Amino acid sequence: MPSRYLNARYRGVTPYVPGEQPRDRTYVKLNANETSVPPSPAVRAALDDALVDGLGRYADPHCTALREAVARALDLGAHGLDASCVFCGNGSDEVLGLLFLTCLGEGAPLCFPDVTYGFYRDYAGTFGVPARQVPLRADLSLDVDAFAAAPENVVFPNPNAPTGLAVEPADVERIAAADRGRLVIVDEAYVDYGAATCVPLVASNPNLVVVHTMSKSYNLAGAHVGWCVCAPDLAADLADIKFSLNPFNLSAPTMAIAIAALGDRSYHDACVSAVISERARTTDELVARGFTVLPSLGNFVFATHPALDAVSWNAGLRERGVLCRHFDAPRTRDWLRVTIGTRDEMDAFLSATDELL
Amino acid sequence: MPSRYLNARYRGVTPYVPGEQPRDRTYVKLNANETSVPPSPAVRAALDDALVDGLGRYADPHCTALREAVARALDLGAHGLDASCVFCGNGSDEVLGLLFLTCLGEGAPLCFPDVTYGFYRDYAGTFGVPARQVPLRADLSLDVDAFAAAPENVVFPNPNAPTGLAVEPADVERIAAADRGRLVIVDEAYVDYGAATCVPLVASNPNLVVVHTMSKSYNLAGAHVGWCVCAPDLAADLADIKFSLNPFNLSAPTMAIAIAALGDRSYHDACVSAVISERARTTDELVARGFTVLPSLGNFVFATHPALDAVSWNAGLRERGVLCRHFDAPRTRDWLRVTIGTRDEMDAFLSATDELL
Repeated sequence: MPSRYLNARYRGVTPYVPGEQPRDRTYVKLNANETSVPPSPAVRAALDDALVDGLGRYADPHCTALREAVARALDLGAHGLDASCVFCGNGSDEVLGLLFLTCLGEGAPLCFPDVTYGFYRDYAGTFGVPARQVPLRADLSLDVDAFAAAPENVVFPNPNAPTGLAVEPADVERIAAADRGRLVIVDEAYVDYGAATCVPLVASNPNLVVVHTMSKSYNLAGAHVGWCVCAPDLAADLADIKFSLNPFNLSAPTMAIAIAALGDRSYHDACVSAVISERARTTDELVARGFTVLPSLGNFVFATHPALDAVSWNAGLRERGVLCRHFDAPRTRDWLRVTIGTRDEMDAFLSATDELL
Repeated sequence: MPSRYLNARYRGVTPYVPGEQPRDRTYVKLNANETSVPPSPAVRAALDDALVDGLGRYADPHCTALREAVARALDLGAHGLDASCVFCGNGSDEVLGLLFLTCLGEGAPLCFPDVTYGFYRDYAGTFGVPARQVPLRADLSLDVDAFAAAPENVVFPNPNAPTGLAVEPADVERIAAADRGRLVIVDEAYVDYGAATCVPLVASNPNLVVVHTMSKSYNLAGAHVGWCVCAPDLAADLADIKFSLNPFNLSAPTMAIAIAALGDRSYHDACVSAVISERARTTDELVARGFTVLPSLGNFVFATHPALDAVSWNAGLRERGVLCRHFDAPRTRDWLRVTIGTRDEMDAFLSATDELL
């Protein structure tokens, strides 16, 4: 029952339900595309006495040092961009939320794939943004032609979730170039696991926004840092709207953690390589057992089996202490999304699956 | 120049300008009601290896442990309340922003004092909330009768900023009881420095929302944690809206820091006592120099002098390495707001002031 003070514009809205975090036992958690692997050792070192002793002071609301660290890590200078093209947020969710709040609404509608990250639909539903779902093609790949022809602002993850399928930057540029009057937001949460980034396209595509998170390839879901790379005037608009809502959206420890992790490229790359390698092994093992597995470029695989329905598979895994994610919608209900964890975690997943087959 | 993608509803809006953080030299910073005093030693201990090693996992979006820590620290059980009455945010700014986003808008206007925290006006201006300023009385105290009679939703700080003047909980209850159809939001950012909290009134006043921050009395501006205490159904509405905008609004390190500091009541109380004591000394010293000083219950004083205009005072202090805050509006331009720092910092402020007199 909502309170009587909930604004009338939200009446009838179905609130988002966060993914479960059961505490009844210890699970192998392969349900949230996060990781049990620690972040870079540089993170530990960044949380030093000087940082703690200075917590009485507000952190920099412009996130200057963090934006410069992002510019270095992404080598923005090589693409005609700099820190003025970076807007940082409390996770890519906040970046997306502020992008939508800043740019969308009545007269500025949004479209996104019918099978994709649920945040876009939930945001649009809650905040009254006219929204349209663009069906994936039959093979669950993104329909580039449909997005190029769409009159609405566009958002999609690349690679998409939960499929793991990616399109090429040239396809993204085609979508952006089709109509400069609308924004094309590419959510690259999973891009580090093998897809090509669209960041180099930003300088020549003023309506392109590329969103990144440190929750995946930097092993920092618990720190919750994200950013977007876009034209400087749009980045400035985002900062203006943020300053009216929550100027100090990134705490001092969070920014210190992010800067430290961004500076340790070799650790990041080693973690990413381990996931890619384990993804290949897991895919091979599943295929050998008769599963169909989409060729994922994310830190997860999307798999289905002709003789093991996904609901039973998911429930059986859970009974055996392995959590995966099932999406109960017409086009996804035969599939399970399985986060790629460590070798031991994937062995536990495969053993439990074997018991169910 | 805004980008072409800024939604039309923001055209003509004047963006908020954050307080300056000059880096040309080291200043005695008395301009942001923050502190150079470190937080509780428990904070250092909370940032341990287990926390860092677990950063690959998302933090609890329900902030369960933090809400329970708040309930204990505020002894909510003694007032017929519990953790379900607590909503936590990334600073009290985010809590206020989400309260406004959840409850205000066309048909749900807001009123606040004409001299007060600028965030309320900036939020309303940016996000199109009909807003009215209710003048303080001639002595700069809150006009309780005017707020009791106001048809709009109400927000004010208690103590108010930059005056430091507070009203009694009985006055707040009178405002709340005058019309249960509107929200009365009391921003108690500075309440720990000597005013009485309205938290005990929440159980019997379903339209009362009490907002707290850890940025002041917990020496944690850089961690940026806040919460509100209100009826459970409104707290649930706030969570619903948050989940559509940014589910993981508090990072794992931030929550660990907050929980540690909330558990160290004696350190908190000692820091508060030191500020109260230094506030009394600073007030006495200023009065002895011919200043008029409002009887502040905040971690700052608001002062004016018949022969030293506030702009010159502020500029002279700055030249001498001391930053204070001047508000260039008709009713405040003769005054300076001076944060209460350590004894050494206040001595530096008083010495610099002496040079200017």
